[in-house]
Amino acid sequence: MAKSKKTVFFFGAGKAEGMSVAKTDAERRMILGGKGAGLADMTAAGLPVPPGFTISVADCEDYYKQGRKLSNAVKQQIRENMAKVEKQMGKKFGDVNDPLLVSVRSGAARSMPGMMETILNLGLNDKSVEGLAKKTSNPRFAYDAYRRFIQMYSTTAMGLSKEPMEDMLHNAKKKAGVKTDPELNAEYLKDLCNQFKKFYSDNMKGQSFPQDPYEQLWGAIGAVFGSWEADKAVKYRQVEKINNLKGTAVNVQTMVYGNMGDSSGTGVCFTRDPNTGENTFYGDCLINAQGEDVVAGIRTPMKLSELGKLLPKAYKQLCQVRLHLEKHYKDMQDLEFTVQEEKLFMLQCRTGKRTAAAVFKIAADMVKEKLLTKEEAVARITSEDIERLFYPQLDAKAAKSSTKIATGINAVPGAASGKVVFTAAEAEEMADLGEKVLLVRKETSPEDVGGMHAAIGILTATGGKTSHAAVVARGWGKCCIVGCEALNINNETKSMTVGDKTIKQGDFLTLDGNTGDVYLGQLALELPQQPPAYQTIMKYADELRTIKVRTNADTPYDAENAIKMGAEGIGLCRTEHMFFDTEERRLAIQEMIVAEGLEKRKEALAKLLPFQQKGAEGIGLCRTEHMFFDTEERRLAIQEMIVAEGLEKRKEALAKLLPFQQKDFEGIFTAMNGKPVTIRLIDPPLHEFTPKDDEGVAKLSKITGISPDKIKHRCEQLHESNPMLGHRGCRLCITYPEILDMQVTAIINAAIVCAKAGVKVLPEIMIPLTIDKKELSIQVDQARALADGLIKAAKAKVKYMIGTMIEIPRAALLADRIAEVAEFFSFGTNDLTQMTLGLSRDDAGRFLPIYVANEKDGGKGIFQADPFQSLDQDGVGMLVKMGIEKGRSTRKDLKVGICGEHGGESASVKFCHKIGMNYVSCSPFRVPIARLAAAQAAIADKAAKGKPAKKAKKSK
Amino acid sequence: MAKSKKTVFFFGAGKAEGMSVAKTDAERRMILGGKGAGLADMTAAGLPVPPGFTISVADCEDYYKQGRKLSNAVKQQIRENMAKVEKQMGKKFGDVNDPLLVSVRSGAARSMPGMMETILNLGLNDKSVEGLAKKTSNPRFAYDAYRRFIQMYSTTAMGLSKEPMEDMLHNAKKKAGVKTDPELNAEYLKDLCNQFKKFYSDNMKGQSFPQDPYEQLWGAIGAVFGSWEADKAVKYRQVEKINNLKGTAVNVQTMVYGNMGDSSGTGVCFTRDPNTGENTFYGDCLINAQGEDVVAGIRTPMKLSELGKLLPKAYKQLCQVRLHLEKHYKDMQDLEFTVQEEKLFMLQCRTGKRTAAAVFKIAADMVKEKLLTKEEAVARITSEDIERLFYPQLDAKAAKSSTKIATGINAVPGAASGKVVFTAAEAEEMADLGEKVLLVRKETSPEDVGGMHAAIGILTATGGKTSHAAVVARGWGKCCIVGCEALNINNETKSMTVGDKTIKQGDFLTLDGNTGDVYLGQLALELPQQPPAYQTIMKYADELRTIKVRTNADTPYDAENAIKMGAEGIGLCRTEHMFFDTEERRLAIQEMIVAEGLEKRKEALAKLLPFQQKGAEGIGLCRTEHMFFDTEERRLAIQEMIVAEGLEKRKEALAKLLPFQQKDFEGIFTAMNGKPVTIRLIDPPLHEFTPKDDEGVAKLSKITGISPDKIKHRCEQLHESNPMLGHRGCRLCITYPEILDMQVTAIINAAIVCAKAGVKVLPEIMIPLTIDKKELSIQVDQARALADGLIKAAKAKVKYMIGTMIEIPRAALLADRIAEVAEFFSFGTNDLTQMTLGLSRDDAGRFLPIYVANEKDGGKGIFQADPFQSLDQDGVGMLVKMGIEKGRSTRKDLKVGICGEHGGESASVKFCHKIGMNYVSCSPFRVPIARLAAAQAAIADKAAKGKPAKKAKKSK
Repeated sequence: MAKSKKTVFFFGAGKAEGMSVAKTDAERRMILGGKGAGLADMTAAGLPVPPGFTISVADCEDYYKQGRKLSNAVKQQIRENMAKVEKQMGKKFGDVNDPLLVSVRSGAARSMPGMMETILNLGLNDKSVEGLAKKTSNPRFAYDAYRRFIQMYSTTAMGLSKEPMEDMLHNAKKKAGVKTDPELNAEYLKDLCNQFKKFYSDNMKGQSFPQDPYEQLWGAIGAVFGSWEADKAVKYRQVEKINNLKGTAVNVQTMVYGNMGDSSGTGVCFTRDPNTGENTFYGDCLINAQGEDVVAGIRTPMKLSELGKLLPKAYKQLCQVRLHLEKHYKDMQDLEFTVQEEKLFMLQCRTGKRTAAAVFKIAADMVKEKLLTKEEAVARITSEDIERLFYPQLDAKAAKSSTKIATGINAVPGAASGKVVFTAAEAEEMADLGEKVLLVRKETSPEDVGGMHAAIGILTATGGKTSHAAVVARGWGKCCIVGCEALNINNETKSMTVGDKTIKQGDFLTLDGNTGDVYLGQLALELPQQPPAYQTIMKYADELRTIKVRTNADTPYDAENAIKMGAEGIGLCRTEHMFFDTEERRLAIQEMIVAEGLEKRKEALAKLLPFQQKGAEGIGLCRTEHMFFDTEERRLAIQEMIVAEGLEKRKEALAKLLPFQQKDFEGIFTAMNGKPVTIRLIDPPLHEFTPKDDEGVAKLSKITGISPDKIKHRCEQLHESNPMLGHRGCRLCITYPEILDMQVTAIINAAIVCAKAGVKVLPEIMIPLTIDKKELSIQVDQARALADGLIKAAKAKVKYMIGTMIEIPRAALLADRIAEVAEFFSFGTNDLTQMTLGLSRDDAGRFLPIYVANEKDGGKGIFQADPFQSLDQDGVGMLVKMGIEKGRSTRKDLKVGICGEHGGESASVKFCHKIGMNYVSCSPFRVPIARLAAAQAAIADKAAKGKPAKKAKKSK
Repeated sequence: MAKSKKTVFFFGAGKAEGMSVAKTDAERRMILGGKGAGLADMTAAGLPVPPGFTISVADCEDYYKQGRKLSNAVKQQIRENMAKVEKQMGKKFGDVNDPLLVSVRSGAARSMPGMMETILNLGLNDKSVEGLAKKTSNPRFAYDAYRRFIQMYSTTAMGLSKEPMEDMLHNAKKKAGVKTDPELNAEYLKDLCNQFKKFYSDNMKGQSFPQDPYEQLWGAIGAVFGSWEADKAVKYRQVEKINNLKGTAVNVQTMVYGNMGDSSGTGVCFTRDPNTGENTFYGDCLINAQGEDVVAGIRTPMKLSELGKLLPKAYKQLCQVRLHLEKHYKDMQDLEFTVQEEKLFMLQCRTGKRTAAAVFKIAADMVKEKLLTKEEAVARITSEDIERLFYPQLDAKAAKSSTKIATGINAVPGAASGKVVFTAAEAEEMADLGEKVLLVRKETSPEDVGGMHAAIGILTATGGKTSHAAVVARGWGKCCIVGCEALNINNETKSMTVGDKTIKQGDFLTLDGNTGDVYLGQLALELPQQPPAYQTIMKYADELRTIKVRTNADTPYDAENAIKMGAEGIGLCRTEHMFFDTEERRLAIQEMIVAEGLEKRKEALAKLLPFQQKGAEGIGLCRTEHMFFDTEERRLAIQEMIVAEGLEKRKEALAKLLPFQQKDFEGIFTAMNGKPVTIRLIDPPLHEFTPKDDEGVAKLSKITGISPDKIKHRCEQLHESNPMLGHRGCRLCITYPEILDMQVTAIINAAIVCAKAGVKVLPEIMIPLTIDKKELSIQVDQARALADGLIKAAKAKVKYMIGTMIEIPRAALLADRIAEVAEFFSFGTNDLTQMTLGLSRDDAGRFLPIYVANEKDGGKGIFQADPFQSLDQDGVGMLVKMGIEKGRSTRKDLKVGICGEHGGESASVKFCHKIGMNYVSCSPFRVPIARLAAAQAAIADKAAKGKPAKKAKKSK
């Protein structure tokens, strides 16, 4: 570090050198840390801040470069700044008669648990403590200050154990016959100081407690810098994905005292209510106390408003400070202050943490108050804020005191507590009996969907964030943890072992979908709500965004729910799910989940039970014989088709499926009433539909007259080494064109029926897994000939589009050719990610976490985020961009959307906006997140260009 | 078709209208067909060709456009041309006294089995036959001609059954009491004509045999055009991948007769010996005979040279024709001629078919004779010509008379005949006993490699051309058929059913790897050889090419063999194969296979047996206890590593593998002596190494002390849904960096040992499956630090390179970044194809054939070729090209090669040349094909640019 460079910045008496280091608040925070920037800000605004200086982040970097040492250059700057403080305060640092005392506090750009926070009263030693006693005429105050300093320095800066000194304090009170610290007199405190110093020396290889104030200061600053790399701090940054910070700053500030009698006091406050967001001054304070007393909770603090009565002058000044800071920062602030003998001092100012409800309330109110523009309000909301409004959350205290037995991959946020079952069938049975169940499986398959419905949470031993379990659960907003490799499930004994624990069917577990943690027992949950301000903010977002938001929905009921969430159409309707499931059953669960959001409730865990039972009763209702038979019938029809020998038999089996599909489509078209619906033709490999057990084989054999052995042989033949790269998608309709015929007939007939009933319909038929223009054109021609014939014969007016899914690299590479025969593209980024990265989402759990975790956490930091969660913009994104550009080079009005999981992830949605997509589509519960991200992208666009956000190319 | 357009072209008396339709031979052939172009050519050259005219390919297209009818415009042109012929010959078509008779022959640009070939004597009817009898004073000749015409027209043009008329002829001879056709007198022949006409009328719904010569002509021309779409012709074009032809031409030509007594004759000849390629006039002829008599083999033809004695004038003229045509076409020609009363007529001239040996002999001789340049000689060879030199071939006659039970995918050419076994172990046991065995499996896995070695051919029920079985077999040049879905294998009963046939262990089957056909029983095979001319031509190829050719080889013995095949280095050395196998065992087979090529043998099947036994004895020798234990030891060591709990135990297990690997590398470096060797670090997913049965588990348990249950659990955990996209390649070394340490240590230590022994070494360490710069740089840094340390400590001088395999789309997309840390790229186009197309090579068998087969053959014609066989230049090729350009944008001297299966396929090698690769690498047996293709690419380049072929960027 060059000696000439200024890295330590003074603040005091209305002047703050730190204000000139950068133009914006955000930039200043990166240099001075949050606390340093706030102190500079408050000082410059003329607020009463005790003078001091900020040792900037650059010095932290330098500290590590020097091998955990402060350079002489830095020390020199600190001495110079200390001289300025001394001059302002009229005191000397280390003076034996009237010492200048300082606090030393850390302050990174973001506050961070695990870092060393504060050392108070630094500058005291065996001599100056006596001077202080004389000067204040308060030996008790002086020795208490020294006692606290030694204690804090020894433990916080030097890392000695806390308990021994706490024990000495305890013994002193016992000896003195008193109960509380303040009752201890000066003698006892002086004696404690000696005990503490001896303890220090005993544990520091004979070094005595430093008496040189600068030695104390170097030690404290070094301790702050050192704590930047403490395990807890590193872990926190990893969890919170903080990777743009280079270190922490250190603030050295003149001590002020709230414990100088009844004209003194201290407090912590928020400029608005952090729980509700109401525009009221909110906080706690104590008279004759130091800041740590408020936090420690030894004395019960007063409400802030009480201060107005006891110290009206200081309170009035504080209220002015509140208004000033909100106007300055345009956000709710978290403040710390001390009143020393009626004089107010501001010690800290930072953006305040708040509940999800308060996030929306404050943002919406500030727009009304004209503190914020709509753009600024919308830009401030995060996708996590929205998630917190929709999912039940684990009570943090309950979690802390419980036994965590394993951690998997946090696939769907929220929390769920219930009895463990190991099969889908048992999940359904127990749910029928009114139990809340968690379905625990090695992995789930489409055959488990009924049981997944019935369960309130899902836990699997394998799979990643886009495995079957995760994708299905996400569609329902149902808590789900996957890839929990510690589970050792034994289906025969209906139990599992996890480490040394054994969990049997019926035992309670609690899942935290936010963290992936699995807890023993039934833990308390907090239920969410959506306040009116949420609707206000989302309205602003909708006004601002230019990209449309659709949903992925397979049933009329999904479709209806998605519309409630703000969806403007269906971007992906998977037709094969229709073969598996009765919508009536899904309805029950869907209604239950949505009801949670629409009703206003603030019940605790106790109230969840009857509600879940109500949901369970809903399921019971639809599990009539008829419904069950209905599912069976569908399933058998498709199985019949698969084993059918020859075209004619296959056509017969398909004819049985036609009415089911048509009815589904009629329902969906009616629900969407004029909004576009993108329907994907059959996609999964046929073996996903085959019977999995002897009973299933026997049933199928009875219907088809084909021997069980032959059926088994056929099913075996369908086995694939790499099903992801196998006989699926449009490859099925190339080999079995009659499947395409059946599905197009169902879609077009449903559209005709709806059109005749006055419902507006706009089906977009989507052919999946294309890799070649000719492959696609064969199917487009076939579908068009059939559809046009049906429409003509029915004398109906039905418009439809035919497009394709771009989900294989080759399709993106050859998009110019493919667009010649496709009217729209929908990027299937789940599969595109798998193939572009050569990464199976179901298998990646074994190594992908190491790729994503950073080095400090034992990972390799290769990826910034899980590419299945947030689009890999460098690689997959390049293909998507190329695909859009090439596609529009041959078809100018090509409509382009995305229907992978990424369509509901904030950063990915912004990317989709940037590269000119017409819409994104995501699961119903991600629709609000997509709406918000789309708006934020448009805002950023506008800001960057200084002109209105560019509209995506016009198309229907 | 516009009436004004000339589509029928006259030839005769030195003038050929067809010569002006295009400038080059090749273009003329596309318009006039091969036969028509040859006739025009010979006519224009002044050779004696009976006059006639060619109805061009455009008329064939028109015929189909008109709904299988000749347009009046075409008929009008034909009449006009017939008038010209009449004028030249002084005869009238259909004249009752002296009729002009013509032949009608098909002639596409390529000769094609299945198409209608010839109708002779057209123009005869009940009246003119009498006129002909009088005019020639030879009623027998006239009625025989008429009899033949009715017979040919009925069967060939009208499609009536052949047998009934053959029976009538047979009965006539019986009745006449004679043995041969020529003995039948005019009366019998006249009676036969009547019988034939009645048969015609009976089978043509009462229509009598056409008497109008033009009606005959329209019928014959229509029949030729119709035969273009006959099943056999369509099938042939599909098999031969002929898709640039639009139809066939028809040639109508004046009849000449070789059966006009002893001054007449006919013959078929080649301008050089089609079997050996010797420069001698080669052919057969008959005096007083018609062309079909030579072919039918009723009379034994004379050698061509005999003609010089009997008809010296005609023979002398024929010898001049021979010289003229070879000079003109610069290739060996296949000629048909007729001598009518001492006058020579040329009826056909086309490029002659020849054996593989003759291909090389003729090409090499013509360079010496200065008929061809080296470029022209090399450009003329095809990859199939080379294959035919190296693989045993099924005797065509033997195949015809045998029972074909199934057809699979022709993975590796050649042929093999042996006893069926169903497990690798039994293959080894029976081979030990001296049996030739065919290994039949559902699919093969690395554990089967021993048995695959021992077998002389491999047949699998599943998989495609790049499945495990195919890839391994190809490396050894061993006949292999995969994806033979008709096989229903029952390992318990050691038998399989194929349709209604049951084949038990020990039964004989014969595989034709060229076609994929499987035959019952033990069929005769033809053994190949490489003549000296092969070496000459390959020398020319090596002089001409600019791209290097390396080989994929995993053992010293593979490496040695590859050098014999002309390899200039190793482009892919897969280290994991070393874990499975003793090279000693592979040696035996390798030596055996190579020996076949190096010895000159022309033995028939009988001679194969003792040779194969010799090979089998070789294997027996290396299956000593020690060798077997050696394999076991290796296998157990790696299994131990996989189940090892914790880093230290894993390191212990790895330490056991180190000496094996190092020894392997020492052998390879020594064999390559200075040639570059690209060594790929471990690539396959770990589960490929795990024990597959209880016995294996028990052994591993004994060594490691880990319980069998735990081992099984660990193996289960390793199971993947899509192993292709799973935990493999460099992902293994990211999660287990100690594997990289072990392998790099083995490579560098081996290099040090070799360098100190005076062997030149240039290891190129290749990290597979990269998708990211950081992922790669972590491993490059680790490897470099380790390698440099070892070299320094040993005070050795060893240079090495570190590069990566580009085999995942993302790596190609981000190649500019990746090249910053990679010194070379090797494109792994097998996996790149799988991921770019989303196509598993192991599963594609169920639908890919439909994508490749054309519409006429029940396919969809989506791909021109199997993308696993011939690089998909549009899609995968785009990525490869992009990868090279991006890579060289950040590292100018980036060395680039290919090591997928495509590196040994002709079209793909040419593409690699075009996009500027430095080398291709392929299995040893494909090396000559790659050398040839590389030379042809350079030649084409030179021709296109009119300047020397561009050299690839220089690098080592």
